[in-house]
Amino acid sequence: MIINGQHFHTIWTDKSHRGIIKVIDQKKLPWDFCIQSLKTFDDAFVAIKEMTVRGAPLIGVTAAYGIYLGLVNSSLNEPLSDYINRLCQTMKTTRPTAINLAFSVDRMWKSLENIDSKEIALEKAYELAEKLKQEEIECSSMIGDYGLVLIEEISKRKNEETVNILTHCNAGWLACIDWGTALAPVYKAYRKGIPVHVWVDETRPRNQGSKLTAYELQQEGVPHTVISDNTGGHLMQHGLVDLVLVGSDRTTRTGDVCNKIGTYLKALAAKDNNIPFYVALPSSSFDLTISDGLTEIPIEERGGDEVKFIEGRKGKVQIIPDGSPVANYGFDVTPARFITGLITEKGICGANEEEILEMFK
Amino acid sequence: MIINGQHFHTIWTDKSHRGIIKVIDQKKLPWDFCIQSLKTFDDAFVAIKEMTVRGAPLIGVTAAYGIYLGLVNSSLNEPLSDYINRLCQTMKTTRPTAINLAFSVDRMWKSLENIDSKEIALEKAYELAEKLKQEEIECSSMIGDYGLVLIEEISKRKNEETVNILTHCNAGWLACIDWGTALAPVYKAYRKGIPVHVWVDETRPRNQGSKLTAYELQQEGVPHTVISDNTGGHLMQHGLVDLVLVGSDRTTRTGDVCNKIGTYLKALAAKDNNIPFYVALPSSSFDLTISDGLTEIPIEERGGDEVKFIEGRKGKVQIIPDGSPVANYGFDVTPARFITGLITEKGICGANEEEILEMFK
Repeated sequence: MIINGQHFHTIWTDKSHRGIIKVIDQKKLPWDFCIQSLKTFDDAFVAIKEMTVRGAPLIGVTAAYGIYLGLVNSSLNEPLSDYINRLCQTMKTTRPTAINLAFSVDRMWKSLENIDSKEIALEKAYELAEKLKQEEIECSSMIGDYGLVLIEEISKRKNEETVNILTHCNAGWLACIDWGTALAPVYKAYRKGIPVHVWVDETRPRNQGSKLTAYELQQEGVPHTVISDNTGGHLMQHGLVDLVLVGSDRTTRTGDVCNKIGTYLKALAAKDNNIPFYVALPSSSFDLTISDGLTEIPIEERGGDEVKFIEGRKGKVQIIPDGSPVANYGFDVTPARFITGLITEKGICGANEEEILEMFK
Repeated sequence: MIINGQHFHTIWTDKSHRGIIKVIDQKKLPWDFCIQSLKTFDDAFVAIKEMTVRGAPLIGVTAAYGIYLGLVNSSLNEPLSDYINRLCQTMKTTRPTAINLAFSVDRMWKSLENIDSKEIALEKAYELAEKLKQEEIECSSMIGDYGLVLIEEISKRKNEETVNILTHCNAGWLACIDWGTALAPVYKAYRKGIPVHVWVDETRPRNQGSKLTAYELQQEGVPHTVISDNTGGHLMQHGLVDLVLVGSDRTTRTGDVCNKIGTYLKALAAKDNNIPFYVALPSSSFDLTISDGLTEIPIEERGGDEVKFIEGRKGKVQIIPDGSPVANYGFDVTPARFITGLITEKGICGANEEEILEMFK
């Protein structure tokens, strides 16, 4: 997608050196556009852990490149397979909730099994990281195409009046490699000339909505309005939302959707106002091993300073008085019964075990 | 209630000069505790308009004192009744949503009807402003007593384990004169030794939760935790909330509750998790002339800079990129069907026309 008129992915290999992986530093957006070089496994580990890169699909791909970087820089004081096991195990600990991380790491791990030669392992690892990246791009594009149909239907029903879409957090291309998940249909619709407008939830405490989604939409020229997270219910009550589109960090075989904290509240409001609530996600965000999102998905708790301080254009300010404790849960789970459908690269299906398993057959 | 060990009301008459009304400057909290002097009608008008004072009951009382100050400083180039009409009409325009403003102004207006003497009008106005203040204190205290019973019941059911109460915005004593509405039962419970803990919604965009509610609770020593507005649903799903208590800016004869934007989302989550959702409000917050909250209550839209910038401990930072439009609705309406009960100074009643009208008989 476009930044300052130029096409970018969120992650790519340095043109002149295959041992350097470049990423957009998402902690500095929207104020500064900086590119960071990942040269070692630790660089990739820290980039995920500290959210230089974020978004379930991008985390997965970065983890794959991270394992590859681990092989680039290995001195191998231990058997290759032990080293690979250690890399994979360590990478899985970066962040607990998004399943894409485990999905990518497990695929890398499996492809590197029983390889004795470092050179072959290196080649395989790079190839697979590139493949995972390519797959995510294709998934996003397909999600965009399937979701586009939903927007087109609403547009027709509204006699081509603007379609108002509410989104939470950032499930745009910055969360992926290109196109995005929840925003992919929006970009496809906009490029096709369908009038769309996006309500962008600020998404406290890290403000991925106002910082990343607003930035993305601005760069692509898509009309949008930033709102506090408290606002969506009011808008829905007053007919100002036609469709809710969000992403997912992990979705169970039964269709329970784990996503950024606050998603559940928007799903409740959509249900109460008969507004379609769709979740857009690639296959890599499904966890078919679990069936109860509320009890089985680990919810990351992050440091309180993310709530207590806020990073703005020119520095950080404290917004909660000293002496008041803070809690910071990163995600919540929206039970399947609130979800109109799941938009994947394989098509749109209902949020229920039967349709999900059928899709994965 | 207590600030730095000393008892305060939010508004009072200067000891040495009855023409000076003192208020706590709530725009400076929690970082600085400053007292502002209101000497003219315009001072009071601006204090309400710019939210030096806020909270439905306090707005009402400040408006009454403001009209009194208008009489203190009148030079009377027009008939007294015309002047009083002008003061009352102007005061009503400060803020559109909270009905307490109209309630207070109308009572002042009526009591000053057919008075020819400025001296008598002045005396009557001061007396009534003081009376309205006293009434609000008594209402808050009674609300506290009635709400306390609910907390006691939950405490018993939990074998005296901590009762977890979630609140949105600030409906504490800073929104009133003393005690508060939603927080009055909490203070009464805490002083009675019942273990309570309050989840404090940050309450974007103006952060009255993290700035005012957290500050109040801290000063009184009540255990609490500040959370982003996105968090409440997750907490309720996991059994971490026993009771939701909020205030109201206007409640219809049918029990629809207008309150700070985002309240509706918490009511939806409470309903979905079978958690009691109570609204605490004095009689002055009812608008018995209307029956459909969604269509009949005017929702204040405030400037976008309240969302785009955030005021912290040491200044203000921009948190939304230039070029992204912003919307800022101040309130939303929670339909009566989501409300377990209304706690008023007359007792607790259901959120329905029959019980509300019975209470006001």
